[in-house]
Amino acid sequence: MSRKSKEEIAIIYQGIQDHICSELEIHDGGGSFMEDLWDRPEGGGGRTRIFQNGNIIEKGGVAFSAVHGPTPEKILAKLGLEKSDFFATGVSIVLHPKSPMVPIIHMNIRYFEMDNGTHWFGGGIDLTPHYIVPEDARYFHQEVKKVCDRFDPAYYPKFKAWADEYFFVKHRNETRGVGGIFYDRLSAQSDEHFEEILNFSLAVGRLFPDVYGYFMEKNSPLPYGEKEKQWQNLRRGRYVEFNLVWDAGTKFGLDTNGRTESILMSMPPLAEWKYMHQPAPGSPEEFTLEHLKKDMDWLSYTL
Amino acid sequence: MSRKSKEEIAIIYQGIQDHICSELEIHDGGGSFMEDLWDRPEGGGGRTRIFQNGNIIEKGGVAFSAVHGPTPEKILAKLGLEKSDFFATGVSIVLHPKSPMVPIIHMNIRYFEMDNGTHWFGGGIDLTPHYIVPEDARYFHQEVKKVCDRFDPAYYPKFKAWADEYFFVKHRNETRGVGGIFYDRLSAQSDEHFEEILNFSLAVGRLFPDVYGYFMEKNSPLPYGEKEKQWQNLRRGRYVEFNLVWDAGTKFGLDTNGRTESILMSMPPLAEWKYMHQPAPGSPEEFTLEHLKKDMDWLSYTL
Repeated sequence: MSRKSKEEIAIIYQGIQDHICSELEIHDGGGSFMEDLWDRPEGGGGRTRIFQNGNIIEKGGVAFSAVHGPTPEKILAKLGLEKSDFFATGVSIVLHPKSPMVPIIHMNIRYFEMDNGTHWFGGGIDLTPHYIVPEDARYFHQEVKKVCDRFDPAYYPKFKAWADEYFFVKHRNETRGVGGIFYDRLSAQSDEHFEEILNFSLAVGRLFPDVYGYFMEKNSPLPYGEKEKQWQNLRRGRYVEFNLVWDAGTKFGLDTNGRTESILMSMPPLAEWKYMHQPAPGSPEEFTLEHLKKDMDWLSYTL
Repeated sequence: MSRKSKEEIAIIYQGIQDHICSELEIHDGGGSFMEDLWDRPEGGGGRTRIFQNGNIIEKGGVAFSAVHGPTPEKILAKLGLEKSDFFATGVSIVLHPKSPMVPIIHMNIRYFEMDNGTHWFGGGIDLTPHYIVPEDARYFHQEVKKVCDRFDPAYYPKFKAWADEYFFVKHRNETRGVGGIFYDRLSAQSDEHFEEILNFSLAVGRLFPDVYGYFMEKNSPLPYGEKEKQWQNLRRGRYVEFNLVWDAGTKFGLDTNGRTESILMSMPPLAEWKYMHQPAPGSPEEFTLEHLKKDMDWLSYTL
């Protein structure tokens, strides 16, 4: 069994993008994706798909890209590597729902390869509810764990802890949401191992529309009012803070002349900031803040 | 003539904060400042004053702080200095007006001193109109230049160019607004020079309520509608992007465990993001985007 080439992986990832977009359109029942094709001057390009003003999804994007060329100096310096060409392909998603009762979600799978043979996979999926509901967090982690366990029982605990570290809003001392999994620099030891990691990334990609479709169906009929909308806007403000201040991918993209509109498709349609906002004692908003913590064991959480 | 001590400078800066707050309350005629006193565990503290829901100012802050203690490792490393204690005091302001016809403004004056004798002044003032009006930009730069020229004719051209570089949203290839002045690491060569730089910073501080009061009076009666409000929200989104991605002061504060709520008082009350937003050809919005450029000579700009 020989390993897939980088061009084959790009084509398979494009298929994942297609699958996700058509599933989301079905679940939303309203809007549809608009597509932007773009070229990268240094090599390669992408297919950015944006969803705005759907029934359930207010603003979001599902982006595919496959870029190549000389490895940016910043990567070479960081890794202590010699000059070399690189190839990178991936699918990246952020969705902001209309309803504050439906969580924000993010998913990313990516593959990186250099001419000198260095290669790795990275990715993850994490959930950011405006209101934390333990049953929803448990369901999400169960589904993610099931996918991880099909490949390696060590994946879930390791990548769950990694997500807790990665999706942390340090200056607020809170996690972005209820976490999920995050992994990076997974390199293959053999052709078989390579296929396994690739297949794991595809399984994460296919999990995405199933698990988010579940929340779209279940949570979008829930009632809410002005109070919940305002809380949603404040939480979206925190999402902006995480992405612009701490997210390594966003920072790297903006710093290396990436396609700004594709990188910042993760921004919410609207966000709000209030000085020293404190939720009322005993409120669902306070419950949420109190549970934005690392090391929450959502699988065995009981009220 | 002996130079002022750091404690004296802190007291004078506090006076500048008082002056600015009372002037802004008079110009606004509506809201008033609420005050938060805070202590820094490692030494010192601050007096953050927040204005929310005034007649003209929707959200803003005028913050004073005077902090001291061991110099943060990050500063020592950056400057290649030995362990030492530091003292820093300053006044920092960002105001977001209700009306899109009134510009956003930022002003900062600060003094930094280390036990080993190293010291410097820094600061600046810059204007971010939602709609660029050349007459307003010219007026602003004229007033700023007048203050600079009272101290050193080299200040304005040097600090104006520095502001163009500093207040640049690299990933959007646009300046934050029409600029102003920015200066940093101004160290005194003599006691006389020290007083001169200190007085320059005080003059910048006193200029602030005069020049912003002018825009509050002149521009807040101008009519506007939904279209202008939405454009304001998009421009506020760009303000967020600059502050969270590029502003050195914000990044440093968030990275070194500064007081988050005081640092992020610069965030707008509301901000909006749209994918690939393009203003209509010939519109005032397009005019604005086309003039968010470095090296604009607003003093001699003619339509």
